[in-house]
Amino acid sequence: MFGARCLLRALRSCSSAPCPRHKPTAKLSVRDALGAQNASGELVKVQGWIRSVRSQKEVLFLHVNDGSSLESLQVVADSSFDSRELAFGSSVEVQGQLVKSLSKRQNVELKAEKIEVVGNCDAKAFPFKYKERHPLEYLRQYPHLRCRTNVLGSILRVRSEATAAIHSFFKDSGFVHIHTPVITSNDCEGAGELFQVEPSSKIKVPEENFFNVPVFLTVSGQLHLEVMSGISYTEAVEILKQASQNFTFTPEWGADLHTEHEKYLVKHCGDIPVFVINYPLALKPFYMRDNEDSPQHTVAAVDLLVPGVGELFGGSLREERYHFLEQQLARSGLTEAYQWYLDLRRFGSVPHGGFGMGFERYLQCILGIDNIKDVIPFPRFTHSCLL
Amino acid sequence: MFGARCLLRALRSCSSAPCPRHKPTAKLSVRDALGAQNASGELVKVQGWIRSVRSQKEVLFLHVNDGSSLESLQVVADSSFDSRELAFGSSVEVQGQLVKSLSKRQNVELKAEKIEVVGNCDAKAFPFKYKERHPLEYLRQYPHLRCRTNVLGSILRVRSEATAAIHSFFKDSGFVHIHTPVITSNDCEGAGELFQVEPSSKIKVPEENFFNVPVFLTVSGQLHLEVMSGISYTEAVEILKQASQNFTFTPEWGADLHTEHEKYLVKHCGDIPVFVINYPLALKPFYMRDNEDSPQHTVAAVDLLVPGVGELFGGSLREERYHFLEQQLARSGLTEAYQWYLDLRRFGSVPHGGFGMGFERYLQCILGIDNIKDVIPFPRFTHSCLL
Repeated sequence: MFGARCLLRALRSCSSAPCPRHKPTAKLSVRDALGAQNASGELVKVQGWIRSVRSQKEVLFLHVNDGSSLESLQVVADSSFDSRELAFGSSVEVQGQLVKSLSKRQNVELKAEKIEVVGNCDAKAFPFKYKERHPLEYLRQYPHLRCRTNVLGSILRVRSEATAAIHSFFKDSGFVHIHTPVITSNDCEGAGELFQVEPSSKIKVPEENFFNVPVFLTVSGQLHLEVMSGISYTEAVEILKQASQNFTFTPEWGADLHTEHEKYLVKHCGDIPVFVINYPLALKPFYMRDNEDSPQHTVAAVDLLVPGVGELFGGSLREERYHFLEQQLARSGLTEAYQWYLDLRRFGSVPHGGFGMGFERYLQCILGIDNIKDVIPFPRFTHSCLL
Repeated sequence: MFGARCLLRALRSCSSAPCPRHKPTAKLSVRDALGAQNASGELVKVQGWIRSVRSQKEVLFLHVNDGSSLESLQVVADSSFDSRELAFGSSVEVQGQLVKSLSKRQNVELKAEKIEVVGNCDAKAFPFKYKERHPLEYLRQYPHLRCRTNVLGSILRVRSEATAAIHSFFKDSGFVHIHTPVITSNDCEGAGELFQVEPSSKIKVPEENFFNVPVFLTVSGQLHLEVMSGISYTEAVEILKQASQNFTFTPEWGADLHTEHEKYLVKHCGDIPVFVINYPLALKPFYMRDNEDSPQHTVAAVDLLVPGVGELFGGSLREERYHFLEQQLARSGLTEAYQWYLDLRRFGSVPHGGFGMGFERYLQCILGIDNIKDVIPFPRFTHSCLL
């Protein structure tokens, strides 16, 4: 038997207590290095990209940034370290002593003892130049490199935080997150301006059509969220505290929007009245209407004010809405295709409503970024699908 | 001036203290009603779908469920309430007194004083029948109604919770969430079995090709995550505590997988060694290899063990890898198309690695669900794209 005493001994023998000889050098992010209080010569290791190189007679100054901070860390090295490889854009690992800086420009600096170039940078070919402030339009030509700049790195971090905050908000409010489909056989908003999806010629399928029906990139997850209103009965007008409603955060496509073909929409089924009624004008999606009377000139979701496809139907209106919808579909020859949507109203429907928010428009608004292409990691638009 | 005293008075006059005459009936979820301690006749309102109807001479029993609980709430009503409309599947709003139940089957029940049918259900046409336990295969035919069942409602709730947990895990570990694109001009894994995306015939574009190049539904966001390794320098092998790495949770498509055409993959750039090395065999994606030596027969990510496309390159291997990749691309005539990928290695590359996890496979594993179609809200597969 492997007794407790034996186990303890075994554990001790593989103890992780560091051996003084091989004590590993503490690795610090640039942010942590910059924030170090009372830097007094402790040995640390910092990794990052060279943002500037200044070579003096006896000293070499580097500014190194790893993306953890807008500010870079100043590295001071003996001029013997100077080499061609220490160029703007190269990635390096620097080992040295973190000390108080004599200059007023920074609190701490790293006295290099060892500098290793991890990834060379062909500075001549590198499209970003030392000391130049490249405009966003210029950076847009290099979607594979622009996240290395402070501006795009920051935008993408805010995008990530905003995504998380929206998810938390809905989760904490009792909503169920639904992945609405990207491929659909519906033409939800009747716009007809869709992207069709077909197996490429290399795929061998016996049948002519892979899915039996023509399929498209979705223009809206709205109908699918309506389906999911069956997951829980909660009157939309009662909102939030009543939990569980549902929401999605799925990309949608509209070929009619010539500047944004792949756009994320946060949608939910359920209602947040104040938000919907006094929505900022700057974020107005096409289906919202002006609140001309409001002093701040806000917008409101038509869906909630005028019962429509995503209607709030109740009482005597209910049956009429069903027959109205049935007639509309029959007139357009769509009864068969949308029988499932009629079914939702035939089989114990419940009041529901919702609205969508263009996530990229929202990011533009909070970040003050003019062009939507700069808040999307890999933007796609007419005549461009880079990477 | 609007003084403090005046303001206080104004606030008092619009106080939200309830007027006793119009005291609104408390609305309770079925879960909260069932969990009520010491139910002693308080007036409440409950909404939900009728799950069963049992009509006796003088009493009518209904079971009502709103999705908030697997258990339904028993509603006891005078037989005068009986009506055809109170059918299995209808949605109702019941007002009454929450009382202790005399039966041992439940703690509380609702003595109905008012029952309103909100949404009728055409019980004959409704595909789900009272008291029948429909198999998952049967429910799959009704993707627009199946979320009303306990089983699908539960699966979708677990899916939502699992999504949130994965997001939290990466966020708390300092990863940046990246939305990798759904449309791409790359053929990342070289499989060639792709879904092509083209504007439908209704879109009028002067040029023949909307994006100038053929575009496809992505089969992998891996290369895009590699681009984003430029957002922060963190050696993959140092992991987690070192923060900011990046991850994605974007759907991907492979036409070669005949059972799942729209699948979510959680991917990250960065490394979680234990997870990757001792990954459950049941979740093995194609690119992982068997850990034959491991006692639990786990799998590991090849990417991390054998430097590949998402390689862990360092030291002297680095330059060789670049030239190797360059030669490979030249041989396939892909140098121009993948110049951006070579660029990542030309301009200060940093060590990176990662792996992907099939989210739906993971759900199957934790839920014990045999068919992947049952863990996807709206599954798409060969010959089927419902809704």
